Amino acid sequence: MKARVTVSLKPGVLDPQGRAIQHALEGLGFPDVAEVRVGKVIELDVADGTTEDQVADMARKLLANTVIENFKVELA
Amino acid sequence: MKARVTVSLKPGVLDPQGRAIQHALEGLGFPDVAEVRVGKVIELDVADGTTEDQVADMARKLLANTVIENFKVELA
Repeated sequence: MKARVTVSLKPGVLDPQGRAIQHALEGLGFPDVAEVRVGKVIELDVADGTTEDQVADMARKLLANTVIENFKVELA
Repeated sequence: MKARVTVSLKPGVLDPQGRAIQHALEGLGFPDVAEVRVGKVIELDVADGTTEDQVADMARKLLANTVIENFKVELA
């Protein structure tokens, strides 16, 4: 069974990686990109019956830094 | 207008970051996670009317390394 955790920076937190991508896109001929934010997506192959709460627990303990990041859990 | 590019390693490509996460989860009391793969999600604020093809072009030229990574484009 698959679980997916998407981790993204909270609004207001500076994203230098995104800024670098935006600049690079400008240089490559894509001047109309106003903002870029970069996040992580972590796909876990978990045991059948694992609940969303358990995966959220993994996210809080390891996958996301909840001071500056939000996360979203999806089970599939 | 928002566009989202999800970049993930192709199947078969080793993912040491994912392996490290799996081991760390084991140590934290989650022994039932069989595999972990880590990808990136890039959210772009693009001009209205930007097509999926244009965003895919950005992905091919900069956001993804198509030798070892797949990417998926979503417009919202």
